Amino acid sequence: MIGELKSELHAIFGARSIAIVGASLNPEKRGYQAIARLQKDGYTGRIYPINPRVPEILGHVAYTSLLEVDGPIDLALICTPATTLPGIIAQCGIKGVKGAVVLAAGFAETGPEGEYLSAVTLEAARSAKVRLIGPNTNGIFNLHNRMNLVGIPDAVPGNIGVVSQSGNMALALVAEAKQRGNTGFSTFAGVGNQLDVRFYEYLEYLGEDTATKVAVFYIEGFLNGRRFLDVCRDVASRKPVVIFKSARTLAGQEMAFSHTRSLASSFAMTRDLLRQSGAIVVEQSDKVLSTAEGLSMLPVAKGNRVAVLADGGGHATITIDALADHGVVPARISSETRKGLAEILPPTAAVHNPIDVAGGTDRSPSTSVDCAACLLEDECVDILMIVGMFGGFSTRFSESLLEEEIEASIRIGELARQYNKPVMVQSIYAMQMPEPLRVLKSAGVPLFIWPENAVRCVSELIEYSRARSRITNSPVPEPGLPSKSAQAILDKANAQNRLTLFEHEARDLLSAYGVEVPSYIVMRSHDDVREAIKAFGEVPTAVKIVSQDILHKSDAGGVLLKVAGEAALRYSYSEVIENALQYSPDAAIEGVLVSPMAESGVEVIIGVVHDETFGPILMFGLGGIFVEVLKDVSFRALPMSRADALEMISEIQSGGILDGVRGSLPINKEALVDLMMKVAEIAMLHEEISEIDLNPVVLRHDGYDVVDARMVLSSEAN
Amino acid sequence: MIGELKSELHAIFGARSIAIVGASLNPEKRGYQAIARLQKDGYTGRIYPINPRVPEILGHVAYTSLLEVDGPIDLALICTPATTLPGIIAQCGIKGVKGAVVLAAGFAETGPEGEYLSAVTLEAARSAKVRLIGPNTNGIFNLHNRMNLVGIPDAVPGNIGVVSQSGNMALALVAEAKQRGNTGFSTFAGVGNQLDVRFYEYLEYLGEDTATKVAVFYIEGFLNGRRFLDVCRDVASRKPVVIFKSARTLAGQEMAFSHTRSLASSFAMTRDLLRQSGAIVVEQSDKVLSTAEGLSMLPVAKGNRVAVLADGGGHATITIDALADHGVVPARISSETRKGLAEILPPTAAVHNPIDVAGGTDRSPSTSVDCAACLLEDECVDILMIVGMFGGFSTRFSESLLEEEIEASIRIGELARQYNKPVMVQSIYAMQMPEPLRVLKSAGVPLFIWPENAVRCVSELIEYSRARSRITNSPVPEPGLPSKSAQAILDKANAQNRLTLFEHEARDLLSAYGVEVPSYIVMRSHDDVREAIKAFGEVPTAVKIVSQDILHKSDAGGVLLKVAGEAALRYSYSEVIENALQYSPDAAIEGVLVSPMAESGVEVIIGVVHDETFGPILMFGLGGIFVEVLKDVSFRALPMSRADALEMISEIQSGGILDGVRGSLPINKEALVDLMMKVAEIAMLHEEISEIDLNPVVLRHDGYDVVDARMVLSSEAN
Repeated sequence: MIGELKSELHAIFGARSIAIVGASLNPEKRGYQAIARLQKDGYTGRIYPINPRVPEILGHVAYTSLLEVDGPIDLALICTPATTLPGIIAQCGIKGVKGAVVLAAGFAETGPEGEYLSAVTLEAARSAKVRLIGPNTNGIFNLHNRMNLVGIPDAVPGNIGVVSQSGNMALALVAEAKQRGNTGFSTFAGVGNQLDVRFYEYLEYLGEDTATKVAVFYIEGFLNGRRFLDVCRDVASRKPVVIFKSARTLAGQEMAFSHTRSLASSFAMTRDLLRQSGAIVVEQSDKVLSTAEGLSMLPVAKGNRVAVLADGGGHATITIDALADHGVVPARISSETRKGLAEILPPTAAVHNPIDVAGGTDRSPSTSVDCAACLLEDECVDILMIVGMFGGFSTRFSESLLEEEIEASIRIGELARQYNKPVMVQSIYAMQMPEPLRVLKSAGVPLFIWPENAVRCVSELIEYSRARSRITNSPVPEPGLPSKSAQAILDKANAQNRLTLFEHEARDLLSAYGVEVPSYIVMRSHDDVREAIKAFGEVPTAVKIVSQDILHKSDAGGVLLKVAGEAALRYSYSEVIENALQYSPDAAIEGVLVSPMAESGVEVIIGVVHDETFGPILMFGLGGIFVEVLKDVSFRALPMSRADALEMISEIQSGGILDGVRGSLPINKEALVDLMMKVAEIAMLHEEISEIDLNPVVLRHDGYDVVDARMVLSSEAN
Repeated sequence: MIGELKSELHAIFGARSIAIVGASLNPEKRGYQAIARLQKDGYTGRIYPINPRVPEILGHVAYTSLLEVDGPIDLALICTPATTLPGIIAQCGIKGVKGAVVLAAGFAETGPEGEYLSAVTLEAARSAKVRLIGPNTNGIFNLHNRMNLVGIPDAVPGNIGVVSQSGNMALALVAEAKQRGNTGFSTFAGVGNQLDVRFYEYLEYLGEDTATKVAVFYIEGFLNGRRFLDVCRDVASRKPVVIFKSARTLAGQEMAFSHTRSLASSFAMTRDLLRQSGAIVVEQSDKVLSTAEGLSMLPVAKGNRVAVLADGGGHATITIDALADHGVVPARISSETRKGLAEILPPTAAVHNPIDVAGGTDRSPSTSVDCAACLLEDECVDILMIVGMFGGFSTRFSESLLEEEIEASIRIGELARQYNKPVMVQSIYAMQMPEPLRVLKSAGVPLFIWPENAVRCVSELIEYSRARSRITNSPVPEPGLPSKSAQAILDKANAQNRLTLFEHEARDLLSAYGVEVPSYIVMRSHDDVREAIKAFGEVPTAVKIVSQDILHKSDAGGVLLKVAGEAALRYSYSEVIENALQYSPDAAIEGVLVSPMAESGVEVIIGVVHDETFGPILMFGLGGIFVEVLKDVSFRALPMSRADALEMISEIQSGGILDGVRGSLPINKEALVDLMMKVAEIAMLHEEISEIDLNPVVLRHDGYDVVDARMVLSSEAN
C-alpha cells in the first residue's frame, strides 16, 4: 500500500536543518533549552539560532533573521510571541522553510483578537507554503532523528508514535515508559490548536513512518473527523492505531472547551466510528501505554484461540475470569498436545486448557518452556499466555535455578519468533524484575504484573486482528445509481419548499431502492375511504394525518390504531383531521394515510443523521424504552460494509432479544442487514436528505415492517 | 462498639511464643526459613524449634517434641506432612497451644483420603481446643509483632490487614506496596482450606485489631457467607472492609474449584450482598492495594461534594470525565470561596469548580496551597482533589522553586489534618517522585499518577461513607409476630404434603401481612361463575387453573386473560380445566381462580430464594425481557432495611423506567418499598417458605397490583 510517501510531514520530522527563532542565552527559556537538548542528544543536522542581539549561542553562530542563514532550512522552531508570527512565517516562505513549530499561546483560544491573529497566521502559512505545528503546542520529537524539540528529557527510543492534544499526557506517557515500560517512542507531536496540520495528517505521517509500529492519539475533539476516519481505515490496515478519547462526558466536554477548542460529538458514537475504522479505543489514561506496547511488540494474532499456561492457582482464576469478561473462550487444544503435556508434567497437572502445571515447574523452569513449545506447535492455538510466577523461581525456591531460568527466558523469546504467535508473560515477580524477566523483556516478550492487564492485551490483539481482517475482507460496496423516481420525490418536495417528506413519499422513496414497505392509501376525501376498504378489507389498519406542518403526529391526535371496517375508518378519517386542525389550526392537510397494522415482532430503530464532524452516520438500536432509558444504540459512519451492519446488530447490549426470547423465533438478520445497507445507500446517494428515521421497524422471523418512516431534507439544499 | 476482645485469634497473631514443628537445618526448608526470618526481624517472643534429630537450630535449643518444651507455647507453626497432623494437634492440646498454622497440603483438596484426614484433624483440633490456620496455607504475619511466618521478605509495615485464599495474591500486594505504595501492612493470613478458622473469624479479628485500619480480603468462595455478612456489617461500621472476589465467572469458578474447595454463588448476587454489608468490592486485582491505601490514609468523607483544583488542561478533563463516570457531581462552592480564589489567581483562571488555575501557580507552588486552604474552608466541600502536576514545578520550571514547593507540600498535609477532610494529589510527576511529592506522601496525602485512579479513590471514599451511615442510621426493622392465619395456610399445605401454595393461598398469606392483593374468587363449579359475575361485574378478568400438579399454568393452557361477561367466563372456566387435564391427565384440580385484570403499569419481579451459603435473599428487578436478556436485577440478604430496599430500586440499570418514560407518571416508590419490606418480613418469619415469586407485580403512580404470586415450601419442613 505504501509506495511513494505522500505526507508533507516527513520534511518536518526528518528535518536535517533547524532554525530556532527566538533563540536565547537564558537557560530557563525554550530558545536555549531546545538547542542544548539537540546538542546533548547528538542531533547531526544543522542548528541555526536566530537572535539579532547575540553573536552565538552554545557555540552556534546566531543570525539576525532567517533570511541571513546561508544554507537551506527544513524546520523552524518559533519561540517568539504570537503577534510576531505572521511576519516570521512570511520569512519562512521566502527562505523555503518547510515547516514551523509554533509554541506561542494567545491565538484562537483567547477570544476575537486571537481569532483574527489565527486567521492572518494561517493565511501567511498557506501562501508561504509552510506547514504549521501548533500554535500553543509543547513541541515535537523524532527520537530516531535525535531531534527532541519538546524538552521532555529521558524519552526512551522505540517504535510508538504519539500525537497529543495535551502536553501533560505526553509527559505522563514518557515517564511511564521510563519507569516500567517494555518499549519506547519514535515520534511525538503536540498538536496545540491544530491551526494548520490536523490529526488526520499526523496519522497519515505515522502510517508512512517506518520507525513507527503503533500510532497513539490523545484526542479531546476532532476538527475534521470524517477525514480522520478515512485515514485511520487506511493506516489501521497496516499498523495499529490506539486512541484515547478524552472529553467523553458532557462535563468533560465543557472542561475541554475551555482548554482547547474542539468539536465534541457523543462519545458512544465517536467510539463506534473509530472502531469501525480499525482503531483500538482506550478509555483509561493509565492503559494507553500498555495497550500500545502490546500491539507494538507482538505479531498480529491469526485468531482468537488463547492457551493459558498457569503455575499459580489464584492468578489462573483471575485470568480465566478476565478472559470470560472479554468474551474470550480458551482454545480447545488438540489431543496430541494434551498427550505431549501429560508426558512433560506430573500426573496431578491439568492438561486441558487452562493448563495447571500443579507445581510441576517449580524446580525446573525449563519444563515451562517445554509446555510452551508444545502449545505453540498446536495449530488450534493462536495466542499463548504464561501466567503465575515465571521468572521468579530462582527468587522463590533456590538461587541455583537462576541459570536455567535465564536460559528458559531466552528460549521463550525464540519460540515466539519461531512460531510468529503472540506470547506474553504475567508474573507476580514482574514488579521486582529479577534477571530472568529482564532477559525475557529484551527478547521482546511483554511482561505484565496483573492478570487483567495481560488479558486486556490479549483482547486488544484479537480486536485488532478482527478489525484488520474486516477492513481488508469486507469492502464498502460500490454505490449503485440514484433512482430517478426517488430523485423526483425529493425534487418535488424541494419545489414545494418542504423540509420534510410526507410519510407516503418516504415510503415510496424507500420502495424505489427495494425496501419492502407496507402498502398504503392516502385518503384525500370521504370517497377514498371506500377505496381503502376495497384494498385492505376488514383488517385492522393504522390511520395517520399527512401534513407538512405536523411533525409529531401522535401529539396532535393525528394517529389512530387498530381501525377496522368501513364505519370505523370513515369516523377515523374525520377524527384525525379534526384533531390535527385543533392542534394546529393553520396546518395544511395533505390527506390521511391508511395502512394495515404490522404484525407484532421486535421493534427497532434505523436512522441516519449528519454529524458536524463525522458526516453521515447510521444508527441502529432497539425501539421503545431501550432507546429512551438504556441508550442502547450502535453507530457507523457511511459508507459502511455488510460486516459493519452485522457488528452493529451483535454489539447492542440487548441484542439477545433478536435471537428470540420466551419461545419466539430469532429475527431474520439477513433481511435486517439488507434493510440497513439500503438505508445507508439512500443516505449516500441523496446527500440532501439530512435525516432518516425508520421508527419503529418491526422485525420478525420472516421479514420486517417499516411502520413509520420520516425523512428530513437539508435546509442548505433549498 | 469494641469493649472486650472477642476473637480467639489475638492469641495467634499476638503470639509471644512460637514452636516450629518440623524445624530444619536445611536453609531451603520452611522449618529453617521461619526461624531465620523471626530472628532477622527481631521477634521478641520465645522460639522453640521441634526436631528430635538435632540439638539446636540457629542458636535455639531444639526439642524432641512439643511436650518437652518447658514454657508455655502460644502458637505452633507446623511444617510436617499432612498425615502427622492429628498426632501433633493432640500434643498441642496437652501443651495448651492456642493456635496452629498448618502448611501441609494433601487434605480435602486431594480426594476422599484427604477428606478423611481433614475430618480427623478437625476433630483433634476441636477436642484439643486448638484453632487451626490452614491447612494448605502459606502462613501468617503480624508485622507489629515482628512475626513473619510467611517467608515473604520486604513486607512494609503499615495499617492494612490482608486475608487471602491465594498466597500469590499476597506476594503481589507486598511487592506492589514496596514498589510504589503509599503505606504498608499490619497483618496477613493465608486461609488455605479454611478447615477450622474461616473468613468471618479473620474479619472479626481484624475488626478488633487496633493496628489494622483497613481489612482486605481475596476470596474465591465462602464457606459460611451469611455469618461473614453479619460480621462485615459490624466491622464496616467502624473500619473499611475491601473485598476482591475472584472466581466471578463460571469459567473462573471451575478453575477455583480445582484450586481450593469453595462454594460459589453468582457474582452479581455476592457483590450486592457484600456491598449491603458495607464492604467495598474491587473487581480488578491491580486496584486492591490502592483502594485499601486510600481508605486507610484518609478520614471518612462527610459527604460527596468534591472540589477539583487543576493546573493542567488534559488531566483536568480526564478527571472530570471520570467523576461523571462515577456519578459524582463537583461541589457547588460558595460565593465567598469564589471571591477568595479570584483574589489569589490571575484573571484568566476559572474560579468555579473545577478550578483551573490557568498557569497561575506555575511559578509559585504556594499559590496552590492558598487555593487549597480556601476550598477546604468552604463548608460545601467534603473532599479536595489537586490534579495536574503539583510537586513537579521545580522539576519543570526552575530548581529555585524547590524549597517553596517542599514547604507547600508540608502545608497541604497540615491543612488536610486541620480540616479533617480527604485531600489527595494526582500528579504526572508521581511516577518520578521528586522531593516535594515524597514529603507530601510522608505527610499522609495519597499520590496518584493517573486521574482515573484518584477519582476511583474519591468514589470509594464516598461509597464507604454512604455505606457506613446507611448501616448506622437505617437499622434492620425488628420483625413483628408471625400471623396466625398465615401460619394456618402453611400448616394446611404441610398437612396435605404440598410443596407449593395455591395461588389464592399465597395471596391470602400476603394479605395477612397487609400486602394489597387483588380480590379473587376460586370457582369450584359452574354455579360459582355467577358469584364471580356478581362480585366483578363485566370488567375484564384473568382466569387461571388452580392445581398443585401444574406449576407452569400458561404452558398448560391454564391461563386466559381479558375474559369479560358471564358467557365468556363460563366458557373459560371449562376451557382451562379441559386444557389442564389434557396437559396433565392425572392433575388434581382444586378450582379456577378469577380476578380482575390489573391496570397497565411497569412490570417488576420481587422474589426470595434461599442461597446455600448466604441464606435468604430478596431479589428485585424489572419484569419480562429485562430479566431474561439483561439480567438487570438486584439482591439483598435478609433481614434488610428500608434504605436497602431504596438502593435496590435505584441501582437497577433500567431503573429510569420507574421514574416515568414517554409522559407516564413515576411509580409510587414508597408503596414499592413497603411491599418489598413485607415480603422480606414474611420470608424471615416463615423460614419454611423456601421460595417466593411475585411475578409480575404491576407498579403504577397510585400503587401496585400483585398479578401472580407463587410460594414454594422447603422439602425439609415436611
